[in-house]
Order: sequence, then structure tokens, then C-alpha cells
Amino acid sequence: MPGNSFGKLFKITNWGESHGKAIGVVVDGCPPMLGLNEDYIQKSLNRRAPGQSEVTTQRQEPDKVEILSGVFNGKTTGTPISMIIFNKDFRKEDYKDIAAAFRPSHSDFTMQKKFGIRDPLGGGRSSARLTAGNVAAGAIAYKILNERFGIEIIAYVVQIKDIRAEIDSEKVSKKDVDSNIVRCPDKNAAKQMINLVEDAKNSGDSVGGIIECIVRNVPIGLGEPIFDKLEADLAKAMLCINATKGFEIGSGFEGIKMFGSQHNDAFVMKNGKVATKTNNSGGVQGGISNGMPIIFRVAFKPTSTIQKEQDTVDIKGKSVKLAAKGRHDPCVLPRAVPIVEAMAALVLCDHYLGQRAQNGDKFD
Amino acid sequence: MPGNSFGKLFKITNWGESHGKAIGVVVDGCPPMLGLNEDYIQKSLNRRAPGQSEVTTQRQEPDKVEILSGVFNGKTTGTPISMIIFNKDFRKEDYKDIAAAFRPSHSDFTMQKKFGIRDPLGGGRSSARLTAGNVAAGAIAYKILNERFGIEIIAYVVQIKDIRAEIDSEKVSKKDVDSNIVRCPDKNAAKQMINLVEDAKNSGDSVGGIIECIVRNVPIGLGEPIFDKLEADLAKAMLCINATKGFEIGSGFEGIKMFGSQHNDAFVMKNGKVATKTNNSGGVQGGISNGMPIIFRVAFKPTSTIQKEQDTVDIKGKSVKLAAKGRHDPCVLPRAVPIVEAMAALVLCDHYLGQRAQNGDKFD
Amino acid sequence: MPGNSFGKLFKITNWGESHGKAIGVVVDGCPPMLGLNEDYIQKSLNRRAPGQSEVTTQRQEPDKVEILSGVFNGKTTGTPISMIIFNKDFRKEDYKDIAAAFRPSHSDFTMQKKFGIRDPLGGGRSSARLTAGNVAAGAIAYKILNERFGIEIIAYVVQIKDIRAEIDSEKVSKKDVDSNIVRCPDKNAAKQMINLVEDAKNSGDSVGGIIECIVRNVPIGLGEPIFDKLEADLAKAMLCINATKGFEIGSGFEGIKMFGSQHNDAFVMKNGKVATKTNNSGGVQGGISNGMPIIFRVAFKPTSTIQKEQDTVDIKGKSVKLAAKGRHDPCVLPRAVPIVEAMAALVLCDHYLGQRAQNGDKFD
Amino acid sequence: MPGNSFGKLFKITNWGESHGKAIGVVVDGCPPMLGLNEDYIQKSLNRRAPGQSEVTTQRQEPDKVEILSGVFNGKTTGTPISMIIFNKDFRKEDYKDIAAAFRPSHSDFTMQKKFGIRDPLGGGRSSARLTAGNVAAGAIAYKILNERFGIEIIAYVVQIKDIRAEIDSEKVSKKDVDSNIVRCPDKNAAKQMINLVEDAKNSGDSVGGIIECIVRNVPIGLGEPIFDKLEADLAKAMLCINATKGFEIGSGFEGIKMFGSQHNDAFVMKNGKVATKTNNSGGVQGGISNGMPIIFRVAFKPTSTIQKEQDTVDIKGKSVKLAAKGRHDPCVLPRAVPIVEAMAALVLCDHYLGQRAQNGDKFD
Repeated sequence: MPGNSFGKLFKITNWGESHGKAIGVVVDGCPPMLGLNEDYIQKSLNRRAPGQSEVTTQRQEPDKVEILSGVFNGKTTGTPISMIIFNKDFRKEDYKDIAAAFRPSHSDFTMQKKFGIRDPLGGGRSSARLTAGNVAAGAIAYKILNERFGIEIIAYVVQIKDIRAEIDSEKVSKKDVDSNIVRCPDKNAAKQMINLVEDAKNSGDSVGGIIECIVRNVPIGLGEPIFDKLEADLAKAMLCINATKGFEIGSGFEGIKMFGSQHNDAFVMKNGKVATKTNNSGGVQGGISNGMPIIFRVAFKPTSTIQKEQDTVDIKGKSVKLAAKGRHDPCVLPRAVPIVEAMAALVLCDHYLGQRAQNGDKFD
Repeated sequence: MPGNSFGKLFKITNWGESHGKAIGVVVDGCPPMLGLNEDYIQKSLNRRAPGQSEVTTQRQEPDKVEILSGVFNGKTTGTPISMIIFNKDFRKEDYKDIAAAFRPSHSDFTMQKKFGIRDPLGGGRSSARLTAGNVAAGAIAYKILNERFGIEIIAYVVQIKDIRAEIDSEKVSKKDVDSNIVRCPDKNAAKQMINLVEDAKNSGDSVGGIIECIVRNVPIGLGEPIFDKLEADLAKAMLCINATKGFEIGSGFEGIKMFGSQHNDAFVMKNGKVATKTNNSGGVQGGISNGMPIIFRVAFKPTSTIQKEQDTVDIKGKSVKLAAKGRHDPCVLPRAVPIVEAMAALVLCDHYLGQRAQNGDKFD
Repeated sequence: MPGNSFGKLFKITNWGESHGKAIGVVVDGCPPMLGLNEDYIQKSLNRRAPGQSEVTTQRQEPDKVEILSGVFNGKTTGTPISMIIFNKDFRKEDYKDIAAAFRPSHSDFTMQKKFGIRDPLGGGRSSARLTAGNVAAGAIAYKILNERFGIEIIAYVVQIKDIRAEIDSEKVSKKDVDSNIVRCPDKNAAKQMINLVEDAKNSGDSVGGIIECIVRNVPIGLGEPIFDKLEADLAKAMLCINATKGFEIGSGFEGIKMFGSQHNDAFVMKNGKVATKTNNSGGVQGGISNGMPIIFRVAFKPTSTIQKEQDTVDIKGKSVKLAAKGRHDPCVLPRAVPIVEAMAALVLCDHYLGQRAQNGDKFD
Repeated sequence: MPGNSFGKLFKITNWGESHGKAIGVVVDGCPPMLGLNEDYIQKSLNRRAPGQSEVTTQRQEPDKVEILSGVFNGKTTGTPISMIIFNKDFRKEDYKDIAAAFRPSHSDFTMQKKFGIRDPLGGGRSSARLTAGNVAAGAIAYKILNERFGIEIIAYVVQIKDIRAEIDSEKVSKKDVDSNIVRCPDKNAAKQMINLVEDAKNSGDSVGGIIECIVRNVPIGLGEPIFDKLEADLAKAMLCINATKGFEIGSGFEGIKMFGSQHNDAFVMKNGKVATKTNNSGGVQGGISNGMPIIFRVAFKPTSTIQKEQDTVDIKGKSVKLAAKGRHDPCVLPRAVPIVEAMAALVLCDHYLGQRAQNGDKFD
């Protein structure tokens, strides 16, 4: 069953393998007359690219994007926008062992069993490299939302392993996020996180963590009960990102410790508009945005590809030892920040167009 | 944008309002020749029905299901199965105040703003009563999976407010789950939970918690990367259930505290088949089932409709006090157990048919 | 694969069998705040109902529609509109023979082979009776289009067997169409048609013909190249109607006899707007409406269920003789007129919402 | 609304503009382990390519295809197959006038009005050049069908303007079709057609015609009533092809002149299988293939871009004269033959996978 498209009205189709000739994405449903060029897209891609710092993989993939269609004289034409990234850094030899033995907690085994065949080079279709296409598409979605509503989407690392940062989500800015290589706006926590990641890297190990994301200036009314609720589509989008194991919105898993009378967000009038005193709802109620900031968190497991030796079996069912030789991220979170933002933008843009289909151009 | 269908190949369309003439669901894509009758569906619905015990709402809605189409001589015909539940218990007068003032953390406000109109009676389209249709459809999906693979789907309450149960997910049975009214297989914890819910109820308040779900005998290969990953669709399905705020699979939010070398599930041979030593992955790798049990958890906030007086605003923006008068669940979790199971069945059945489309009838 | 939904944004799901308890349709994606009641729907259904005249079947099915959801205080709420028609006229005994032997050119054989089972009563799921749901849904789509753009959709019988009517499509009105029982606005042709149908009926035979449909006041810009072109979706909609064998738009199959220089529709300015001198395009160019009237034709084969004895085989492969005993339409066209209109309305409404999603509320 | 994807289970997404950097297609849902390489695809493309003969455009676009993903070691992997064709022959200057004035019966006007912007170069997104992607994708679909069922899909020109060929559809072979440049297997008619097209070309004019297509060895059971009937999806697919104005299956528009007793296809036993004596149904009954050859016809209007001077208006609403200067096809039919075949293959493959999803691997 085809599973490589995302979105109904702002629909993207992602294709490519990590070490194939190229990877890419086709965006269908982008409204016409949006100013767009490659430089703008490239900026988003650069935040995801490998080789940015010592806490990410040392591979150098410039991820240079080309727009092949859908833009004329610097403006979108309403026809499919095809974007392509040709692959440059292709080091076949590092991945040979992995082809034969299944990397624990990686998709090697399940891809092989599902399809009976797989491109093993660099993780093939399962590589996080494929998210580059999503980031490119998300940049377009974000531009639509930002130009229309002034929407801001800011993700950041809030926890790595057991180091939890203190962050005022209401005030955090993109500049704060990018002020350090781990993309955690709490400077003290960031320092500890960097040390922790480097230690893990040096011992051939890896760590995971939590990314939080806040979305500001969301119009009221996005989300389609009862099955395309806004938080449901956000959850799906986040669980599509490689290495994610959980999603929570607003008060999330912690909120269950409150009584209803504590948890409920009282409605109040603020500047002539209905707002809520608290935001345990995380900006959604009944599957629909309520105008308050949307806030959610995503759990990322520690990277499964590690250099430490591990027990596994090979494709013939023989027990073997395996130690990855490639250059992998000891912690995926810093590079996952723009991916979380991009997927959120895709969800919100799709729902914006959906609401416009049904109710026209009026938004609160 | 239409948001009332779920699934691509096993597709359900849910309709109705809490206090309308009837509610229902249409199942399209059910394979033919499946034995099916109303009694079987009814059993699943009874587990969700209100009025079951003192920890749930006292409303009496028998939720009597009728199959209107798609079944001939006791077998499905491959054509749409339409199921209907006529509404019996309709106490209009209790809900009058709610129509005017927005219940905090309920969907009253967002529905009103999104559509400019809403059926307020009993929560209208936002009522959890609508999940009855999903439970009915899920029962069919479950039957397909169970007959073909012996799949078992068992959900249970693992936490209410701060009371955490100890449950061996590998061994838990449906009988254990239904052995007490709070549907928590840990008897000691169950007692405390019951007391807690009754206290909350007596003080006009509410509590939330966590439901865990285990799925056994899942064939390898379900799930469609990169956007219809199995865990992504499970996450979406769970976040569609009323009052949910979070989803996690396998090690989830806790797993981030491990190193990769601890978290990775080593592959081993077990009875001639590839298995994993641990199951931090929760039965999915790279978005595809790996044959191990699928295990996930869902966070439910405390019920938003409470009898305690709360601050809110009415439809004209005036500050008002509000106290719900209807008979509401002080804790939704016991009745949500079959809903979680049903949504999981819908996701798995859809992916089973998807895998069959692409790879034929062979499954491991 | 589910095949019982139509439309993407104005989406309908049709369910039921000819002689089941009920038949129905769920409309998802209808914009809120549209005035709607059962009387309005009923009027459309009455034009399709059996028993209207001597040229249609004598069965009496009042086709009384009930709205079960999605409407509150006489207005749509943006939630699914479920409509149901309970079956009254159920004469089981007439259909016994048909269950065993395959009616030539009917779907008995293909349904049996596809599903391995079928509800044979009254044609089961293949009965044209099921189009009642489509007519009900189409009436809502039409109301949206008519209130917003003043769109008119008028279908009429233009040919039965070899009797061709002369009709000025620019001037024809719904009143003209309904002025005779065969729904052909050319009175002379209508008389001959009626005689022809009665002769066919009396000899236990049947006849087919062509329905033409004109749509006026269509906004420019409906249709989504390159795969959801307006004429492509109209073609699909028409070929879904029972007994149809062909679709043509504008000049259609006859237009191929012209040179390009004759066939091209020259652009001219009319009342300050761009129009075309001729309308060989039939109101669409490149898959998009151009503001001129849309005009298309649909070929209906002679009804396959006839009372004359025919050769066929039964379910065991034995050669048998078969003569239908039920009360069937000797000519389906008069009752198909509202079905053609309804399907056209569904296509246009879906594309209207699609264009609104992408370009907002501005239309020419 | 996105309109550039076709198919549900074998899903293609087409992108690109006539004179952009490249055009392409992404195929999602192709089953794994299918042998595939560029040479195979190229052969199909060569039949569609321009510059083949004097009856088609003289433009030379080699249409060299590259497979960028989804194939590993010569086999499909079940992941998206991205195919690209870089543009070589780019003669900007020929198209300048067309950009300003709307070509009659072309999509210039509707594209401009729908989107407010368009790429006018070589027809931009509306060019028939885009069908190259569909032909490439169709070649894959055809390979699946042919390897599994031995399906043959043969289209040919049966009429140009008023020259009608005599062709025995049961016996016609692909070799017959390609035996002359007009792709009409009736040699005498072919000669007259070639003369006619050359005359039209010499006078700066164009002609249209009818393509017939026969599909042999179709398994029984493809097609999903009541809205994804096989003939409905074929009709949609054909009406998506540039310049088409009509579709008919089996007896089509002519069949309406028969009585039901003449038109019905009597069932008979042939070699132990149920077959029909005649094939007025065209291989489908009730929307489902019945195992007989599928036979349908598609009407193509005369090419709208002609060199004769025509009346039109420009983008500012001024009346102007227009004569196309580019090298255009005086008759699109010879090159449309492989397009018709490709679209038919896409429809059939999608329905094959759909039937496999619901009923498994058993086919008759």
C-alpha cells in the first residue's frame, strides 16, 4: 500500500534512498502566487544537514536542493513543485557488514521481511536522510502559514537522556534555539547535554531525548473531528520521524496526575477575545485549534546504529556480532529540530487549506 | 474537509450526534465471507456502554446495534456494512446551560468557532458516545485479524491519577481485565483506583490516567514507511479518542533515559524464528511490525465536564460560572478500554489488507 | 478495496441493498450553515422514484428520506449528514429464479465471482435503487452550488433507441423536461418515444438511449489537471450510473469529423467578459471550466432485465432459459434524468470546494 | 486541490512543465521483486516520443528516462520509483506570442484564470509532453499485469476525421498497429489517413479521430462498485488524456439502437468456463470485469494548436489574430496510442491490487 505521501490538500510525495542517485519530494496542492526560490528552501535544509558540529554525524552531505517544476518567475503556479537533491557523499564500503547482519532496533530486519528485498546502502529507504525532502516541503508550508497568519513554529531540545532543560516556551525564539549546537535554549543544560553526547560518541554509544515544539498565532478552527483531529495528525506526523517513540500535547502524560478541576483551562476574555487562563489543552480542544499556542513534545530513542559491538543475527539466521563502522549521529535530536518543525508545518498547512475549503477565507 | 472516515482499505465512516435520532457507522472494504451477526458486535458495545458500574456515568443507553446492510445469510458480502444505534435515553433539560456557556477544556468553543453552529445536546458531535460506532467497526476488524492470525488485542488501565499498577503485559488476559469495574488487572491497584474515582465523583471532580494495550501474534510486515508507519497510524488512532493527550510505544518517554547500547533490542533465534531479547521497540521497527508483541500506552486527561463550579465565558463573551448538571463519567478510562482496542484493530486490519495488496497472501 | 465513497471534499458514502432493511448515504464535508430539510431532499427523490408512470417500473417504493444527523435547527452543522430510506415494497418471491441463474448483461455473474457471495434479492447491491442515496446527496450539492453561483443543472432525454429529439440546450428549462413522462423536452419526439417504450414493454423487451445535461452559470476555474480534470470526473461519475456505456462532452464523438480550424472555439469579449463564439469544448478546456455552459451526453444501454426468455447458465454452469418475472423498467432513462443531475452536482461541488481550498473565495 | 496523482494502490504522481528543467513521475505502491530497468521503460516512451514520422510533430525530444529510486539490483524494492526525463529541445522563441494571446480551445485561458499565473512555455503544465511520465508508469503497471495474467493491452487508431477503419479487434496484434506511422492496423484506411493528415498539416490545420483499445486475458473480478467501477475509472483515465472528448465501452453510443433482447450478452459455457456469446458489455458488467476482452473507444478532437490564423483575445481582453508558430502535431492520435494503453494499464493494475487486498491471491 502506498505510504509515501503525506497530507490531503497540501500533499507531499517523498522518494529516494540514502545512497541512490538522488532523493526528492513532490509537493502537490501548493496555492499559486507564493514567492519561492531555492535559497529559501536551502536555509531550512542547512539546519538539518549532517556535518554541522561535533554532536552530529561527520558525514558531509551538502544537501543542495533544486526546484525542477511548479515555480515560474519566482512564484508558485499551483502545479506540482518537484524538488531534488543529488547525492554526493557515497561511501559504499562502510556499510557492507550491515547489509548481511540485521542492526538491532533498526529497520533492516522488518524491511527485508516486508518486501523480500531492500536497498541496504546507508539504510536505503529507512535512512533519516530521506527527511530532507520533508524539510524542503515543510519550508513551503511554513511560508504559506507565516505569510497568512504570522504563524511561528519553534522546536527545541528540552531533554537529552536525564538532563532536563528549563525553558519558557512562551518566550523562546529561533535565535535562542540556534545559539548552541545541541539546539537547547537553556544554556546550562545545553553545556551538560553537549558533554553527554560527546561522551556517548567517544564510547561508541548513543543517547535520546525529547524535543518540544511551540506554535504561535494559530488561527482558531484547524482540525477535523472525529478522525482528522489536529493533535491526531500531529501525532502521526511526529511518529513518522525516524527514532520517535512518543508524542504528547499540552499536559500530556504528566497531566493525568491532576484533578479535572485543576486541569481544565478556564475561559477568560483577553483583549476582547476568548482565551484560556492556563494551557493544559496545548492549544487544541476536541481536535480543533483554540487560538492558544499549540505545544507538544516528541520522544526520540537513542540512535540504534552504534559502534559498540552488539549481538544480532544475519540474514541466514546465524548469531553474529555487529559493530557499525559508518559515521552516525550519537544523538539525532539537534538535527531533528527542523524536521519536527517541518512536519508540524505540513500538518497545519493541510488543515488550513481544509478549513478554507469548507468555510472560506474567514479566520479568527 | 471531511474528517469522519478512518482507514484506507478497511474504511469506516462515523456519523451522528449524541442526542440525535441515531448514531452509526459504515464499514467499506470488509472482505466477503466473514461470519458476522449483531450479537457478536453487541458484546463489544456492551463493554463500552454507560451505566456499567458506579465508576462510570449512570446514564442508561443500551446501545443496541442493528446491521442494516452488507451481511447476507450470516456472512459479509464485501459491500458496505451499515450499523445503526437508535438513541433512547434523551434528557434534553440537563444540558440547557451548557449550550450557552463554553465548558472549559471541552470542544464547545472550538466547534462553535469552526463551524459557526453546533448541536449542543449532550455534546453533539463531540460526545464520546460517537465512539460506539468505532467500537462496532473495530469488532469486525478484530474478527478478521483473529481468524486469520490469532491476533489478540488486550487493553487495560495501568494508571489512574498517581496510582500506578504493576502488570505483566506478557501474561495479562481479557478475563483479568474485566475482573473489576475499573478494568485494571492489578487487583490491589484496582481497589485504590476505585476508591479514588468514587472520591472524585463525590466531590464533583474527575480523574485521568493511562491505558496500556498489548497486541499479540502480529504478523511481520505491517506498516507502510515513510508516512503510514504502523506506530504513526496507531498514534493517530489513539489521539482521535476523546480526552487523549499522549501516545507512546515500547520504551516511550522513559526509554530516552537509556544509552543506545541498553535500549537496542538484540536479535536472537527463538524456535527457528528471529525474535528480540528485549522489546523496547514495542513490536515495531522502522514503522513495520517485527513479530514481537506491540505494546503502547495512551494518556487520558481527567474528564473535562465536572460538577464543580468553574469560571468560563458564554457565547456572547460574558464571564459566567458553570457547573455541569448531567450524569458524566468521573473517569473515562474503564469505558475507554474497548475503544482503544477497537481503534488498534482498525489500524492493524487496514495495514493487513494493505500488505496483502502489495505482497499477496504470504505472511510470517 | 472500498469503492462506495465518491468525492474528496464533498464526500459521500453510499450503503445498502435493494431489498435490505434500508438504504442510505452519509455526506461528509458539507459546509455548515446551509439551510436543509427533508422536504427539499424528498422532492429530488420523487423524480427518481419508481411507479411514476407507465414508462417506468410499476413497483411502488415511496423512497421516504429521513435525515438522521448533521442538521440542527434547519441548518447543516458541518458534521456528517446521514440520510436513510427504509424499504417498504419487498416482494421476495418474484426474484427466486434470478438468484440461481445469471441474468445476461446484469452483474449477477461478476458479483458472484468477485465476492464469492451476493445478496441476490432485487439485484442486491447492484440495483439502481441504490442511486436514491446519490440523488439525496446530489440535492445538497446542488443547493450549495445554486445558492453560491446560481448554477443550474438540467438533464433530459435526447434520444431513445433511434428516435432523436431536437432540443435547444441553451433555452431548455426543468419545467420543459418534466412536461412529459419520458422527460424529453421535444414534444413530438417525446410522443414517439413513449409509444416505443410501451411497445417494448408489451413485448417483454427494453430500450436504451441518450441523456444530455447542460450546466449553466458555472464559475471559471473548476477542475484539477492533470488527473482530476473536470470532464474526467464527470465521465467517471456518469459511468458509475447503472446501465451507462458512454460519455461525451461538447462536440464529443461527432466533433472528430471537423478540422481543427472549424472545431476551435474562438475567444470573444461578451459583456466585458471573455467568452467563446462556439462551444465545441462543452464548457471545459484543459480540464478546467471556462465559464461557458457545460454540456455532456451519456449513453444508456437497454435495460438488461427483460421478460423475454433468454439463454444463460446457472450458478453450477448448466445451460438454462431465463425470463424475469419482477416489475422492471422497460427504459431507465426517464428515471435516470435526476441521477445524472445529482452526479453532476456532486462532481461540481467537490471541485468548487477544491478550488476554494487552493484559491480562496474569489471566483469569476 | 491536488490533482496530479492517479490510482489508490498503484499510485503515480506526475510533475513538470513542457519546457522546465525536467519532467517526471513517482510510482508508489509498486509490488517488490519485479524485474525492471530503464531500457524496458524507454521502449514504451519511444512509441510516444515526438519526431517519429511526418504525421507527428517534428520536434526532437529524445525523452531519455532515468530511474532514480525504488530499484535495487534490477528489481523493484516496494519503495517509490522516481523516474525523470531531462528536457533537451527547448525553443523558447517560438512560443512568445502564445504567452500573450489565449490559443482557442487550448487551456491557456482556463489555467490563467484558475491560478492567476501560468508557465506558458510550450504549454507549460498543460502540454501533452507530460503524458511521458504516465507512459513510463504505465509500462511498469503493464509488466505486473502481463507477468501475472498474461494481460495484453492493444490500442490502435480506428478513425481519423471521417475515415473509418475495418479492424478485427479479436485478432489485432501490436505488430499490426506499429506497421504504419498512423498506427491503424487497416492498411487501406491507414494510407488514406496518412494522406489526410498530411493535407491538414500542409494547410496549417489539424484533425482528430478515435482510438480503440482491447484488453485480453483480464481476470474476472476487477472493479469496485458502486463508485470505482472499472469502466468508470477507465473513462476517467481516458478523459484525462489531452484532447479527449468522449469515452465508450462495448456497444457504447451505437448500442442504444438495439432492443435489450438483442443487446444482452447470453452466457454460455466455453471450455468449462462461463463466457458470453456476444460482447456488447465490452468485458464489464456492473462495474466488474467478466473475463471477456475489455474493449473501449476514445474520441480525440482535432489538435487545438494550429498554424492557420484564428480570432482570439489576449490577456488584456483585446481582440487579436493568432497563428501558432511552433512545430505541433497535425493529429495527435498516432502518438496517443501508447498513452491510451498506459492509462488503461494503470487502471487495471490499481484494481488488481485492490482485488488482491480484499480477496487475496485467488483469481479466475
